[in-house]
Amino acid sequence: MRVAIVLFEGFTVLDAVGPYQVFSGVPGVEVVLVGASAGPVLDHVGSARMVAEASFEQVGRADVVVVPGGPGQVHHMDGGPVREWVRAVDATSTWTTSVCTGSLILAAAGLLRGRAATTHWLAVDQLGAWGASVSPERVVFDGKYVSAAGVSAGIDMALALAGRLWGPVMAQTVQLAIEYDPRPPFGAGSPHSAPAEVVEFLRERSDRVLRPR
Amino acid sequence: MRVAIVLFEGFTVLDAVGPYQVFSGVPGVEVVLVGASAGPVLDHVGSARMVAEASFEQVGRADVVVVPGGPGQVHHMDGGPVREWVRAVDATSTWTTSVCTGSLILAAAGLLRGRAATTHWLAVDQLGAWGASVSPERVVFDGKYVSAAGVSAGIDMALALAGRLWGPVMAQTVQLAIEYDPRPPFGAGSPHSAPAEVVEFLRERSDRVLRPR
Repeated sequence: MRVAIVLFEGFTVLDAVGPYQVFSGVPGVEVVLVGASAGPVLDHVGSARMVAEASFEQVGRADVVVVPGGPGQVHHMDGGPVREWVRAVDATSTWTTSVCTGSLILAAAGLLRGRAATTHWLAVDQLGAWGASVSPERVVFDGKYVSAAGVSAGIDMALALAGRLWGPVMAQTVQLAIEYDPRPPFGAGSPHSAPAEVVEFLRERSDRVLRPR
Repeated sequence: MRVAIVLFEGFTVLDAVGPYQVFSGVPGVEVVLVGASAGPVLDHVGSARMVAEASFEQVGRADVVVVPGGPGQVHHMDGGPVREWVRAVDATSTWTTSVCTGSLILAAAGLLRGRAATTHWLAVDQLGAWGASVSPERVVFDGKYVSAAGVSAGIDMALALAGRLWGPVMAQTVQLAIEYDPRPPFGAGSPHSAPAEVVEFLRERSDRVLRPR
Protein backbone atom coordinates (compact mmCIF):
# COMPACT_ATOMS: atom_id res chain seq x y z
CA MET A 1 0.00 0.00 0.00
CA ARG A 2 1.61 3.24 -1.13
CA VAL A 3 0.51 6.77 -0.31
CA ALA A 4 2.08 9.49 -2.45
CA ILE A 5 2.00 13.08 -1.21
CA VAL A 6 2.83 15.73 -3.79
CA LEU A 7 5.14 18.64 -2.97
CA PHE A 8 5.47 21.75 -5.12
CA GLU A 9 7.05 25.12 -4.52
CA GLY A 10 4.64 27.33 -2.60
CA PHE A 11 2.75 24.45 -0.94
CA THR A 12 1.45 24.87 2.60
CA VAL A 13 3.38 22.56 4.90
CA LEU A 14 0.52 21.57 7.20
CA ASP A 15 -1.61 20.59 4.18
CA ALA A 16 0.92 17.86 3.44
CA VAL A 17 1.96 16.97 6.99
CA GLY A 18 -1.52 16.39 8.44
CA PRO A 19 -2.21 13.45 6.10
CA TYR A 20 1.44 12.39 6.30
CA GLN A 21 1.27 11.97 10.06
CA VAL A 22 -1.94 9.95 9.83
CA PHE A 23 -1.06 7.63 6.96
CA SER A 24 2.53 7.05 8.07
CA GLY A 25 1.20 5.83 11.41
CA VAL A 26 -0.55 2.86 9.82
CA PRO A 27 1.67 -0.25 9.90
CA GLY A 28 2.72 -1.47 6.48
CA VAL A 29 1.88 1.74 4.65
CA GLU A 30 4.67 3.29 2.59
CA VAL A 31 4.36 7.07 2.37
CA VAL A 32 6.41 8.79 -0.29
CA LEU A 33 6.83 12.54 -0.68
CA VAL A 34 7.09 13.18 -4.39
CA GLY A 35 7.93 16.25 -6.48
CA ALA A 36 8.80 17.24 -10.03
CA SER A 37 12.36 16.43 -9.04
CA ALA A 38 13.77 14.90 -5.87
CA GLY A 39 15.13 17.40 -3.37
CA PRO A 40 14.06 20.21 -1.05
CA VAL A 41 10.82 22.04 -1.86
CA LEU A 42 10.14 25.52 -0.45
CA ASP A 43 6.81 26.25 1.19
CA HIS A 44 4.56 29.26 0.59
CA VAL A 45 5.88 31.17 3.59
CA GLY A 46 9.41 30.81 2.31
CA SER A 47 10.78 29.61 5.66
CA ALA A 48 10.45 25.82 5.49
CA ARG A 49 11.53 23.12 3.08
CA MET A 50 10.45 19.52 2.97
CA VAL A 51 12.37 17.04 0.88
CA ALA A 52 10.72 15.33 -2.07
CA GLU A 53 12.22 11.87 -1.64
CA ALA A 54 11.30 10.80 -5.17
CA SER A 55 10.59 12.44 -8.51
CA PHE A 56 7.35 12.07 -10.43
CA GLU A 57 9.25 9.86 -12.89
CA GLN A 58 10.16 7.47 -10.10
CA VAL A 59 6.58 7.12 -8.83
CA GLY A 60 4.38 5.77 -11.57
CA ARG A 61 1.56 4.64 -9.34
CA ALA A 62 0.12 5.05 -5.86
CA ASP A 63 -2.88 3.60 -4.06
CA VAL A 64 -3.63 6.92 -2.42
CA VAL A 65 -2.60 10.28 -3.88
CA VAL A 66 -2.63 13.39 -1.69
CA VAL A 67 -2.45 16.82 -3.33
CA PRO A 68 -1.88 19.61 -0.80
CA GLY A 69 -2.70 23.23 -1.48
CA GLY A 70 -0.98 26.48 -0.90
CA PRO A 71 -0.57 29.69 -2.83
CA GLY A 72 1.89 27.92 -5.14
CA GLN A 73 -0.95 25.95 -6.69
CA VAL A 74 -1.68 28.83 -9.08
CA HIS A 75 1.37 27.80 -11.09
CA HIS A 76 -0.03 24.31 -11.69
CA MET A 77 -3.52 25.07 -12.90
CA ASP A 78 -2.76 25.56 -16.57
CA GLY A 79 -0.59 22.51 -17.09
CA GLY A 80 2.92 21.45 -16.25
CA PRO A 81 4.40 18.46 -14.44
CA VAL A 82 2.29 18.58 -11.23
CA ARG A 83 -1.04 18.64 -13.04
CA GLU A 84 0.08 16.07 -15.59
CA TRP A 85 1.48 13.68 -12.98
CA VAL A 86 -1.66 13.95 -10.87
CA ARG A 87 -3.79 13.16 -13.91
CA ALA A 88 -1.58 10.23 -14.90
CA VAL A 89 -1.35 8.64 -11.46
CA ASP A 90 -5.07 9.14 -10.90
CA ALA A 91 -5.72 6.71 -13.75
CA THR A 92 -4.71 3.81 -11.50
CA SER A 93 -5.10 5.21 -7.96
CA THR A 94 -7.64 3.77 -5.56
CA TRP A 95 -8.18 7.14 -3.90
CA THR A 96 -7.25 10.62 -5.13
CA THR A 97 -7.39 13.25 -2.41
CA SER A 98 -6.73 16.91 -1.82
CA VAL A 99 -6.28 19.34 1.03
CA CYS A 100 -7.13 23.04 0.83
CA THR A 101 -6.56 24.50 -2.66
CA GLY A 102 -5.11 21.19 -3.79
CA SER A 103 -8.62 20.51 -5.06
CA LEU A 104 -8.12 23.33 -7.56
CA ILE A 105 -5.30 21.30 -9.10
CA LEU A 106 -7.52 18.21 -9.24
CA ALA A 107 -10.26 20.30 -10.83
CA ALA A 108 -7.87 21.85 -13.32
CA ALA A 109 -6.76 18.34 -14.24
CA GLY A 110 -10.38 17.61 -15.14
CA LEU A 111 -10.92 15.13 -12.31
CA LEU A 112 -13.70 16.89 -10.42
CA ARG A 113 -16.08 17.81 -13.24
CA GLY A 114 -19.56 17.58 -11.77
CA ARG A 115 -18.22 15.97 -8.61
CA ALA A 116 -18.84 17.16 -5.08
CA ALA A 117 -15.68 18.66 -3.58
CA THR A 118 -14.44 21.25 -1.15
CA THR A 119 -11.47 23.57 -0.68
CA HIS A 120 -10.20 26.46 1.47
CA TRP A 121 -13.15 28.72 2.27
CA LEU A 122 -11.58 31.58 0.35
CA ALA A 123 -11.30 29.44 -2.81
CA VAL A 124 -14.85 28.13 -3.00
CA ASP A 125 -15.78 30.32 -5.98
CA GLN A 126 -12.67 29.27 -7.88
CA LEU A 127 -13.41 25.61 -7.31
CA GLY A 128 -16.91 26.07 -8.67
CA ALA A 129 -15.55 27.94 -11.69
CA TRP A 130 -13.42 24.87 -12.49
CA GLY A 131 -16.53 22.74 -12.77
CA ALA A 132 -16.75 21.06 -9.36
CA SER A 133 -19.95 20.99 -7.38
CA VAL A 134 -18.85 22.79 -4.22
CA SER A 135 -19.96 21.20 -0.97
CA PRO A 136 -18.91 23.36 1.96
CA GLU A 137 -18.17 20.48 4.30
CA ARG A 138 -14.91 19.81 6.08
CA VAL A 139 -14.32 16.54 4.21
CA VAL A 140 -16.14 15.54 1.03
CA PHE A 141 -16.21 12.04 -0.48
CA ASP A 142 -17.40 11.56 -4.07
CA GLY A 143 -16.50 8.19 -5.55
CA LYS A 144 -12.77 7.76 -5.17
CA TYR A 145 -12.19 11.50 -4.75
CA VAL A 146 -11.84 12.94 -1.27
CA SER A 147 -11.27 16.63 -0.66
CA ALA A 148 -10.68 18.54 2.55
CA ALA A 149 -11.29 22.17 3.47
CA GLY A 150 -8.39 24.50 4.32
CA VAL A 151 -4.98 23.49 5.66
CA SER A 152 -5.72 21.75 9.00
CA ALA A 153 -8.67 19.83 7.51
CA GLY A 154 -6.22 17.37 6.00
CA ILE A 155 -5.97 15.67 9.40
CA ASP A 156 -9.73 15.05 9.47
CA MET A 157 -9.70 13.91 5.84
CA ALA A 158 -6.89 11.42 6.37
CA LEU A 159 -8.52 9.96 9.50
CA ALA A 160 -11.85 9.60 7.69
CA LEU A 161 -10.15 7.86 4.77
CA ALA A 162 -8.09 5.68 7.14
CA GLY A 163 -11.38 4.55 8.68
CA ARG A 164 -12.62 3.45 5.27
CA LEU A 165 -9.37 1.81 4.24
CA TRP A 166 -8.38 0.02 7.44
CA GLY A 167 -11.47 0.21 9.63
CA PRO A 168 -12.40 2.43 12.56
CA VAL A 169 -10.16 0.69 15.11
CA MET A 170 -7.03 1.44 13.08
CA ALA A 171 -8.13 5.02 12.46
CA GLN A 172 -8.80 5.48 16.17
CA THR A 173 -5.41 4.00 17.00
CA VAL A 174 -3.69 6.57 14.80
CA GLN A 175 -5.87 9.33 16.22
CA LEU A 176 -4.87 8.42 19.77
CA ALA A 177 -1.20 8.04 18.82
CA ILE A 178 -1.19 11.64 17.54
CA GLU A 179 -3.44 12.64 20.46
CA TYR A 180 -5.87 14.36 18.12
CA ASP A 181 -8.31 15.63 20.70
CA PRO A 182 -8.46 19.22 19.44
CA ARG A 183 -9.14 22.05 21.86
CA PRO A 184 -8.87 25.26 19.84
CA PRO A 185 -8.48 28.15 22.26
CA PHE A 186 -10.69 30.29 20.00
CA GLY A 187 -13.79 29.46 17.98
CA ALA A 188 -12.70 31.24 14.83
CA GLY A 189 -11.89 28.29 12.59
CA SER A 190 -14.62 28.81 10.04
CA PRO A 191 -16.05 31.91 8.36
CA HIS A 192 -19.35 31.07 10.06
CA SER A 193 -17.89 31.18 13.55
CA ALA A 194 -15.12 33.78 13.25
CA PRO A 195 -15.75 37.43 14.11
CA ALA A 196 -16.93 39.39 11.07
CA GLU A 197 -13.87 41.67 11.20
CA VAL A 198 -11.55 38.65 10.95
CA VAL A 199 -13.44 37.19 7.99
CA GLU A 200 -13.44 40.55 6.25
CA PHE A 201 -9.73 41.11 6.88
CA LEU A 202 -8.82 37.79 5.25
CA ARG A 203 -11.25 38.29 2.37
CA GLU A 204 -9.60 41.61 1.59
CA ARG A 205 -6.22 39.95 1.65
CA SER A 206 -7.24 36.73 -0.05
CA ASP A 207 -4.69 37.40 -2.74
CA ARG A 208 -2.01 36.99 -0.09
CA VAL A 209 -3.60 33.85 1.33
CA LEU A 210 -4.23 32.18 -2.02
CA ARG A 211 -1.44 33.47 -4.20
CA PRO A 212 2.32 33.25 -3.83
CA ARG A 213 4.33 36.16 -2.46
CA MET B 1 10.34 38.71 16.66
CA ARG B 2 11.99 35.38 16.03
CA VAL B 3 10.52 31.93 16.61
CA ALA B 4 13.03 29.07 16.53
CA ILE B 5 11.76 25.53 16.01
CA VAL B 6 14.23 22.78 16.80
CA LEU B 7 14.65 19.78 14.49
CA PHE B 8 16.48 16.60 15.48
CA GLU B 9 16.65 13.15 13.92
CA GLY B 10 13.63 11.13 14.97
CA PHE B 11 11.36 14.15 15.57
CA THR B 12 7.66 13.89 14.73
CA VAL B 13 6.91 16.17 11.79
CA LEU B 14 3.47 17.37 12.90
CA ASP B 15 4.89 18.37 16.31
CA ALA B 16 7.03 20.94 14.52
CA VAL B 17 4.67 21.87 11.69
CA GLY B 18 1.59 22.68 13.80
CA PRO B 19 3.33 25.58 15.57
CA TYR B 20 5.21 26.46 12.37
CA GLN B 21 1.99 26.99 10.44
CA VAL B 22 0.53 29.15 13.21
CA PHE B 23 3.54 31.36 13.97
CA SER B 24 4.59 31.78 10.35
CA GLY B 25 1.12 33.16 9.61
CA VAL B 26 1.67 36.18 11.84
CA PRO B 27 2.96 39.17 9.85
CA GLY B 28 6.46 40.23 10.82
CA VAL B 29 7.38 37.02 12.60
CA GLU B 30 10.53 35.28 11.44
CA VAL B 31 10.35 31.52 11.93
CA VAL B 32 13.61 29.62 11.70
CA LEU B 33 13.96 25.83 11.67
CA VAL B 34 17.19 25.08 13.48
CA GLY B 35 19.23 21.93 14.00
CA ALA B 36 22.63 20.78 15.24
CA SER B 37 23.79 21.44 11.70
CA ALA B 38 21.98 22.99 8.76
CA GLY B 39 20.50 20.49 6.31
CA PRO B 40 17.81 17.81 6.02
CA VAL B 41 16.64 16.12 9.23
CA LEU B 42 14.91 12.72 9.12
CA ASP B 43 11.68 12.20 11.05
CA HIS B 44 10.82 9.29 13.34
CA VAL B 45 8.92 7.41 10.64
CA GLY B 46 11.93 7.54 8.38
CA SER B 47 9.93 8.77 5.37
CA ALA B 48 10.09 12.56 5.63
CA ARG B 49 12.84 15.13 5.97
CA MET B 50 12.53 18.78 6.82
CA VAL B 51 15.45 21.10 6.30
CA ALA B 52 17.12 22.82 9.25
CA GLU B 53 17.74 26.21 7.66
CA ALA B 54 20.25 27.22 10.32
CA SER B 55 22.58 25.54 12.78
CA PHE B 56 22.46 26.02 16.54
CA GLU B 57 25.66 28.06 16.24
CA GLN B 58 23.93 30.48 13.87
CA VAL B 59 20.95 31.05 16.15
CA GLY B 60 22.10 32.42 19.48
CA ARG B 61 18.77 33.77 20.59
CA ALA B 62 15.05 33.51 19.91
CA ASP B 63 11.99 35.18 21.40
CA VAL B 64 10.02 31.94 21.22
CA VAL B 65 11.63 28.49 21.24
CA VAL B 66 9.62 25.44 20.16
CA VAL B 67 10.91 21.96 21.02
CA PRO B 68 8.97 19.22 19.22
CA GLY B 69 8.90 15.64 20.38
CA GLY B 70 9.19 12.31 18.69
CA PRO B 71 10.88 9.04 19.52
CA GLY B 72 14.24 10.62 18.67
CA GLN B 73 14.08 12.69 21.85
CA VAL B 74 15.56 9.80 23.85
CA HIS B 75 18.95 10.62 22.35
CA HIS B 76 18.85 14.14 23.75
CA MET B 77 17.94 13.54 27.36
CA ASP B 78 21.40 12.90 28.75
CA GLY B 79 23.18 15.82 27.12
CA GLY B 80 24.43 16.72 23.69
CA PRO B 81 23.87 19.68 21.39
CA VAL B 82 20.03 19.74 21.39
CA ARG B 83 19.73 19.82 25.17
CA GLU B 84 22.62 22.26 25.55
CA TRP B 85 21.32 24.65 22.89
CA VAL B 86 17.83 24.60 24.39
CA ARG B 87 19.25 25.42 27.79
CA ALA B 88 21.44 28.19 26.40
CA VAL B 89 18.76 29.86 24.28
CA ASP B 90 16.24 29.55 27.11
CA ALA B 91 18.39 31.94 29.15
CA THR B 92 17.21 34.85 27.00
CA SER B 93 13.97 33.57 25.43
CA THR B 94 10.64 35.21 26.20
CA TRP B 95 8.79 31.90 25.84
CA THR B 96 10.14 28.35 25.83
CA THR B 97 7.66 25.82 24.55
CA SER B 98 7.33 22.14 23.77
CA VAL B 99 5.05 19.77 21.91
CA CYS B 100 4.58 16.12 22.84
CA THR B 101 7.73 14.54 24.30
CA GLY B 102 9.63 17.74 23.60
CA SER B 103 8.82 18.56 27.21
CA LEU B 104 11.05 15.65 28.26
CA ILE B 105 13.97 17.49 26.66
CA LEU B 106 13.04 20.69 28.53
CA ALA B 107 12.77 18.70 31.75
CA ALA B 108 16.10 16.96 31.14
CA ALA B 109 17.64 20.38 30.61
CA GLY B 110 16.46 21.27 34.11
CA LEU B 111 13.93 23.86 32.96
CA LEU B 112 10.73 22.30 34.31
CA ARG B 113 11.76 21.42 37.86
CA GLY B 114 8.63 21.87 39.98
CA ARG B 115 6.82 23.48 37.07
CA ALA B 116 3.45 22.43 35.71
CA ALA B 117 3.85 20.82 32.29
CA THR B 118 2.35 18.23 29.97
CA THR B 119 3.46 15.77 27.30
CA HIS B 120 2.20 12.88 25.15
CA TRP B 121 -0.21 10.81 27.25
CA LEU B 122 2.12 7.81 27.06
CA ALA B 123 5.03 9.85 28.50
CA VAL B 124 3.32 11.35 31.53
CA ASP B 125 5.19 9.12 33.99
CA GLN B 126 8.54 9.94 32.40
CA LEU B 127 7.85 13.66 32.61
CA GLY B 128 7.05 13.34 36.30
CA ALA B 129 10.22 11.33 36.85
CA TRP B 130 12.20 14.25 35.42
CA GLY B 131 10.86 16.52 38.12
CA ALA B 132 7.99 18.31 36.41
CA SER B 133 4.59 18.60 38.00
CA VAL B 134 2.44 16.84 35.41
CA SER B 135 -0.80 18.57 34.52
CA PRO B 136 -2.80 16.44 32.10
CA GLU B 137 -4.19 19.36 30.11
CA ARG B 138 -3.90 19.91 26.39
CA VAL B 139 -1.83 23.08 26.84
CA VAL B 140 -0.11 24.08 30.07
CA PHE B 141 1.32 27.53 30.85
CA ASP B 142 3.69 27.98 33.78
CA GLY B 143 5.59 31.23 33.75
CA LYS B 144 7.34 31.50 30.41
CA TYR B 145 7.09 27.75 29.81
CA VAL B 146 4.30 26.38 27.65
CA SER B 147 3.90 22.69 26.93
CA ALA B 148 1.44 20.84 24.74
CA ALA B 149 0.14 17.28 24.84
CA GLY B 150 0.89 14.83 22.03
CA VAL B 151 1.68 15.69 18.40
CA SER B 152 -1.43 17.55 17.16
CA ALA B 153 -1.69 19.58 20.39
CA GLY B 154 1.03 21.88 19.08
CA ILE B 155 -1.59 23.66 16.98
CA ASP B 156 -3.66 24.48 20.07
CA MET B 157 -0.55 25.51 21.99
CA ALA B 158 0.65 27.86 19.28
CA LEU B 159 -2.77 29.49 18.89
CA ALA B 160 -3.04 29.98 22.65
CA LEU B 161 0.41 31.54 22.77
CA ALA B 162 -0.34 33.67 19.69
CA GLY B 163 -3.35 35.01 21.58
CA ARG B 164 -1.12 36.09 24.46
CA LEU B 165 1.60 37.52 22.24
CA TRP B 166 -0.45 39.35 19.63
CA GLY B 167 -3.98 39.38 21.01
CA PRO B 168 -7.05 37.30 20.26
CA VAL B 169 -7.87 38.99 16.95
CA MET B 170 -4.51 38.03 15.45
CA ALA B 171 -4.78 34.47 16.82
CA GLN B 172 -8.28 34.16 15.36
CA THR B 173 -7.04 35.49 12.02
CA VAL B 174 -4.41 32.78 11.85
CA GLN B 175 -6.93 30.17 12.98
CA LEU B 176 -9.31 31.13 10.19
CA ALA B 177 -6.49 31.29 7.63
CA ILE B 178 -5.61 27.66 8.42
CA GLU B 179 -9.33 26.86 8.74
CA TYR B 180 -8.78 25.21 12.10
CA ASP B 181 -12.33 24.13 12.79
CA PRO B 182 -11.54 20.52 13.69
CA ARG B 183 -14.08 17.80 13.02
CA PRO B 184 -12.40 14.52 13.99
CA PRO B 185 -14.38 11.68 12.41
CA PHE B 186 -13.80 9.61 15.56
CA GLY B 187 -13.75 10.54 19.24
CA ALA B 188 -10.60 8.62 20.09
CA GLY B 189 -8.15 11.48 20.55
CA SER B 190 -7.51 11.01 24.24
CA PRO B 191 -7.05 7.94 26.44
CA HIS B 192 -10.23 8.98 28.26
CA SER B 193 -12.36 8.91 25.12
CA ALA B 194 -10.73 6.16 23.04
CA PRO B 195 -11.98 2.57 23.20
CA ALA B 196 -10.16 0.59 25.91
CA GLU B 197 -8.75 -1.84 23.34
CA VAL B 198 -7.12 1.04 21.44
CA VAL B 199 -5.60 2.52 24.61
CA GLU B 200 -4.32 -0.88 25.66
CA PHE B 201 -2.85 -1.62 22.21
CA LEU B 202 -0.82 1.60 22.26
CA ARG B 203 0.25 1.15 25.89
CA GLU B 204 1.63 -2.26 25.03
CA ARG B 205 3.51 -0.78 22.11
CA SER B 206 4.53 2.44 23.80
CA ASP B 207 8.15 1.58 23.19
CA ARG B 208 7.42 1.90 19.48
CA VAL B 209 5.55 5.15 19.95
CA LEU B 210 8.07 6.76 22.26
CA ARG B 211 11.37 5.28 21.17
CA PRO B 212 13.15 5.30 17.83
CA ARG B 213 12.99 2.33 15.51
